Amino acid sequence: MKSLKYIFEPKSVAVIGASATIDTVGNAIFSNILQSNFQGSVYPVNPKYNNIMSVRAYKDVNSIIDAIDLAVVCVPSKETVKVIKQCAEKGIKGIVLITAGFKEIGDEGKILEDEIIAIANKNDIALIGPNVLGIINTQKEISLNANFALKMPRAGNVAIISQSGAIGVAALDYAHQHDLGISKFVSIGNKAVIDESDILEYLIDDDATKIITMYAEDIGHPAKFFEMANKANAKQKPIIIIKTGRSVRGAIATHSHTGALSSSDTAYDALFAQCGVIRVETLAQLFEYATGFTCSVKPKGNRIVVVTNGGGMGVIATDAAERNGLQMTTFEPATLQALKKALPPTANIHNPVDIIGDADAQRLNDALSIIKKDKNVDTIIVSILPTSETNMDAIAANLCDFAKANPDLPILANLMSLEPEPSFEQVLEKANIPNFDFPETDIRVLAAIIKYYEWIKRPQVEVTKFKVNKHQVQEVLDTIRKDKRVHLSETESYKILEAYGMKVIKYSIAKDLDNTIIAANKIGYPVVLKIISPDILHKIDVGGVKINLKDDSELKKAFKEISESVKAQKPNAEIQGFLIEEFFTEKSIEIIVGANGIKGFGSLIMFGLGGTFVELFKDVAFRLAPLTKHDAMNMIKETKGYQILKGFRGQSAYDIESIVDYLLRISQLVTDFPEIKELDLNPIKVLEDGKGVVIFDAKIILAEEENIASLKQKTGIKKETITA
Amino acid sequence: MKSLKYIFEPKSVAVIGASATIDTVGNAIFSNILQSNFQGSVYPVNPKYNNIMSVRAYKDVNSIIDAIDLAVVCVPSKETVKVIKQCAEKGIKGIVLITAGFKEIGDEGKILEDEIIAIANKNDIALIGPNVLGIINTQKEISLNANFALKMPRAGNVAIISQSGAIGVAALDYAHQHDLGISKFVSIGNKAVIDESDILEYLIDDDATKIITMYAEDIGHPAKFFEMANKANAKQKPIIIIKTGRSVRGAIATHSHTGALSSSDTAYDALFAQCGVIRVETLAQLFEYATGFTCSVKPKGNRIVVVTNGGGMGVIATDAAERNGLQMTTFEPATLQALKKALPPTANIHNPVDIIGDADAQRLNDALSIIKKDKNVDTIIVSILPTSETNMDAIAANLCDFAKANPDLPILANLMSLEPEPSFEQVLEKANIPNFDFPETDIRVLAAIIKYYEWIKRPQVEVTKFKVNKHQVQEVLDTIRKDKRVHLSETESYKILEAYGMKVIKYSIAKDLDNTIIAANKIGYPVVLKIISPDILHKIDVGGVKINLKDDSELKKAFKEISESVKAQKPNAEIQGFLIEEFFTEKSIEIIVGANGIKGFGSLIMFGLGGTFVELFKDVAFRLAPLTKHDAMNMIKETKGYQILKGFRGQSAYDIESIVDYLLRISQLVTDFPEIKELDLNPIKVLEDGKGVVIFDAKIILAEEENIASLKQKTGIKKETITA
Repeated sequence: MKSLKYIFEPKSVAVIGASATIDTVGNAIFSNILQSNFQGSVYPVNPKYNNIMSVRAYKDVNSIIDAIDLAVVCVPSKETVKVIKQCAEKGIKGIVLITAGFKEIGDEGKILEDEIIAIANKNDIALIGPNVLGIINTQKEISLNANFALKMPRAGNVAIISQSGAIGVAALDYAHQHDLGISKFVSIGNKAVIDESDILEYLIDDDATKIITMYAEDIGHPAKFFEMANKANAKQKPIIIIKTGRSVRGAIATHSHTGALSSSDTAYDALFAQCGVIRVETLAQLFEYATGFTCSVKPKGNRIVVVTNGGGMGVIATDAAERNGLQMTTFEPATLQALKKALPPTANIHNPVDIIGDADAQRLNDALSIIKKDKNVDTIIVSILPTSETNMDAIAANLCDFAKANPDLPILANLMSLEPEPSFEQVLEKANIPNFDFPETDIRVLAAIIKYYEWIKRPQVEVTKFKVNKHQVQEVLDTIRKDKRVHLSETESYKILEAYGMKVIKYSIAKDLDNTIIAANKIGYPVVLKIISPDILHKIDVGGVKINLKDDSELKKAFKEISESVKAQKPNAEIQGFLIEEFFTEKSIEIIVGANGIKGFGSLIMFGLGGTFVELFKDVAFRLAPLTKHDAMNMIKETKGYQILKGFRGQSAYDIESIVDYLLRISQLVTDFPEIKELDLNPIKVLEDGKGVVIFDAKIILAEEENIASLKQKTGIKKETITA
Repeated sequence: MKSLKYIFEPKSVAVIGASATIDTVGNAIFSNILQSNFQGSVYPVNPKYNNIMSVRAYKDVNSIIDAIDLAVVCVPSKETVKVIKQCAEKGIKGIVLITAGFKEIGDEGKILEDEIIAIANKNDIALIGPNVLGIINTQKEISLNANFALKMPRAGNVAIISQSGAIGVAALDYAHQHDLGISKFVSIGNKAVIDESDILEYLIDDDATKIITMYAEDIGHPAKFFEMANKANAKQKPIIIIKTGRSVRGAIATHSHTGALSSSDTAYDALFAQCGVIRVETLAQLFEYATGFTCSVKPKGNRIVVVTNGGGMGVIATDAAERNGLQMTTFEPATLQALKKALPPTANIHNPVDIIGDADAQRLNDALSIIKKDKNVDTIIVSILPTSETNMDAIAANLCDFAKANPDLPILANLMSLEPEPSFEQVLEKANIPNFDFPETDIRVLAAIIKYYEWIKRPQVEVTKFKVNKHQVQEVLDTIRKDKRVHLSETESYKILEAYGMKVIKYSIAKDLDNTIIAANKIGYPVVLKIISPDILHKIDVGGVKINLKDDSELKKAFKEISESVKAQKPNAEIQGFLIEEFFTEKSIEIIVGANGIKGFGSLIMFGLGGTFVELFKDVAFRLAPLTKHDAMNMIKETKGYQILKGFRGQSAYDIESIVDYLLRISQLVTDFPEIKELDLNPIKVLEDGKGVVIFDAKIILAEEENIASLKQKTGIKKETITA
């Protein structure tokens, strides 16, 4: 078993490739460890030196008598295989491979990297890298700064995982400037052996870490990531991620950067949505959110109060609340009375409360002690501008006391100052009161925090498992495989859907008039009649379709007209027969349900309303199979089309429950048969509430034989409930 | 004529209410002026003192022998009228009235404020306030810091206008921390005499100001603001505004804050869109954009290059470019060849260019000097992380030289540093190279800059003036007024629309079968027949509507069926007659066009596609009348529905030119007749390209007599072109 304890909690570290030459990587790493007050022993390894920075040096790791937990390797890439073999011999179980020049430079590097992976795996070595900055552990008992670019950050409870070294530098730079405390830092580079999910697994049990931030260009193992994210949720450790490669160009850049294989960004969105990971777009947001989550109190709801000494700030905050879906609470009458008594007559006692410009720390306290008693208050945001009356240090101290005395009431601050590094910032930080530049940031961050805890509290449901006819599906698929096809015909697709308990439009195929009439009577009038010919692409254009045929005589007339019209217009077309379908007159609305196998993720399921909803507004939602009922419902609710489905402006509602049912059946189908690469039900007609849904058209495409294995990996919940 | 020269460029200032007592407003203002190195003379006025801070004090302004340009007044509100009268006697033409307690506290304060307005207007006094922080002019020849809360900021070219004192403090705080240079600052408070448009008028001609930022809770005179914004455009001085009160709650808070009357936020959006004002949502954006515009070079287009020493930054930048509609340029082959030669083999020579972590200032220079020659490059963004090789001061100096040598190529920087106040920031600022925390910010800001200069370059068109029958409209309106009505009947509305050259659906009203047949033949078959009864709300439910009647016999049958059905189901309904309309079979799409009179703004015109587009997606656009062709086209293009109108996915296009024509005619109608308070054309059916549009339903409501005056004020272009 590889263990990251050897990486983050070593008692002894060897720096292989340590150097005495200033401005070399080997020098930077060794001196960083020495200066970081590391609580274990560090051994420089380099045959060229007797000692480095007055520390006795060794020609190789095996010359060191003591046991070594961690080797930080920064020798040239061509020497790395030899060095890592030596580490394995020495019994070293942790390696940080700083050196670049592997997979990211092409085939030659890939071969080298594969050799290293083999050695690490054979010897249970937890190997970080190659192509990394290094790692940091700020915990007092360890105090290790093993990287070549960064100073030791202030200790705190935010962990940083960065796929890119550059972003790692930027991240710690930002953390430093904004005084954000760090627990662990790790740059994971090419992720040859240890990837982000492994790091997550370690951090979930790391008491020093409360919040996990991550820069990712891809996720190596979505299924493991999903599992770890859920474990992090169980411990209420939020994961905030910036995943790049969203744009096409971005994806190319990712590729050329660390050779990561870019996966569909939509699958990532679905993955994150299904395991409560907070995805942000910008680095600034990443750290704002991390700072916000340092607030140790969880909001009970989304009703906020803003207390300010500058009315304009209240106005800005109110607009921001509206934008972010938070509610400016309405005070109880008793609160208003008390505020009126406590505050000067020109103050605004309604939310946002304006204690006006001449307010001192005491007046703020008076207001807060009244507001905290109001039952309609879930969170307080305090926005204070510097005036001649404001002693910010006193205000900050008061806020800390207030927070301590009210452990169930979250408080976010927005204390401003003209000083470049005001002393109150650290005071607030210690009391876990997030403080931002502007009230709008407080509110944006608060909205994300509330959303996260709502996710945590969501009902825990298991995957519904329907009784289905898997055998029938297998039979169909076997036939296709025998034919060496991947495209299913409409009727084959229908058979599969019916085997999974779904209803398709009633249809029949006939070769001549007599059988057409028999089929129509079996389906029941009215019917639609269509010509079937591989040579006719647009049936309507050649008079090949007649709708709403009400009886035998209308059907006969239509059969004759279609036959004549097609013969006249397409004399050479091969006619395979006639398709007879029920003519659908019930009130309904069209939806689209699809599924798409994404390498490494399993099946991505799509839902949306048809027509312009999907085509113009791209009003669709995605989730990864297997879906829970909760997932399916969230998909529907996420679309604007939901407003129509649930009954828009007094219109009757459509059968949403049946849509959920079909989404779950599709989810079960593609989970049972990962060889289904693409599935498109377009349209499905949804009837009014309680009346069900009917599939009107289906396309199924199988994966090529050799790609099936990569689709079998599924993220998602493993517990299942059998239902009828 | 009031002149703001007395406010911003006084040679002598009297501080009326100056005080020697620390922590009073009168003390803060006087000492701020003394300390600000003011180039004129300052006179403390207070009968209680012989001198203040060693400066000889006066009992009132009239005791001062010298002429006074500006009086800064901070006496209690009840003394202000007397003091301002004294200022008028002394011939003072500029007053900054700091004191609060006027309109914002209710009726009593309003009376006081009205008295002051009367004195100021009678004596041509430019009066700022009441209820303000004060003003600042950083120009060396003036150097005046006449406010009670703020230190003198660094001189620069950004002006700040703030309606709220609190936001003014926050703004200067932010400017200070981000080292943004300020030209003028003014807090305008209650805007009793001088408002934001007056300040704009002054700043447009102020050479020290290149960029104007503004915090506004309302705009006092939209028409003047529009005129001034256009003048600012002509001088290419961008106006960046944060206008609060967007949310309903926000609007309430605005009201209670400075008693500003909240106008429809939509009208503000339209106003800003029509005069190129950049509206932002957050204070952070306000200053980011201001910093961005300090870049003295204008981008020629939206093709950018990102040069970085950290691949991850390139990925982040590429995603940000996609998000903000900028294009990551593709290099010419020659550029790629040269970069390949100049950069190490592991560098990425494609955009985003990664000069990799060990790059020094020289390598960056080499890359830039190659890239600048590429014809596909409009702007370069340089994103450099601190490494052991990066000397940021050297890099900044090089960038300045590069910018100087390439005066047509805009450059934005993202140089990072672990220092709290790195020295290179001021170097870049002096060379007008904006520098931001993250590349994503560079790109967001650049997108705003490009949009602004595109606006500046837009074709200058005049308002089209159609030949119309105003007389016919006046006749209809006279009738309504005579009847003391405000709601027009459908036929009255149709008459007005027809008088302005618009086509409404063919219709007729008949009382009996014979006349119904005559009417139908006049309109032309097929027709629709509808019952008219004030007692029947849902005509279809009682069988009161028959469509697609093709000849006399079908019409007769329908007439009989409707009569019988209605008699059977609603025996007591009063039947006023039958409505005969043409039955519309041509391919068409429904749109909505509306107009709404907004106090102070004139008419706000709305456009959108019908159905779910408007109801669910709120896919509508607004502009203020009078519209230019350019405005009308922009409205249409702003909606998603435009994709449908211009021919979605191979479908034929609809008649967009006719929509533009109708928008302009409606604009002319509501401009000619401001008493039209509300107008709703819903639906208008738009035929295929070249076939025109037809109005199917119209509602017009007039303003109450007493409100007409307030609707006559129109913003917008005054030049008009007569067309047929």
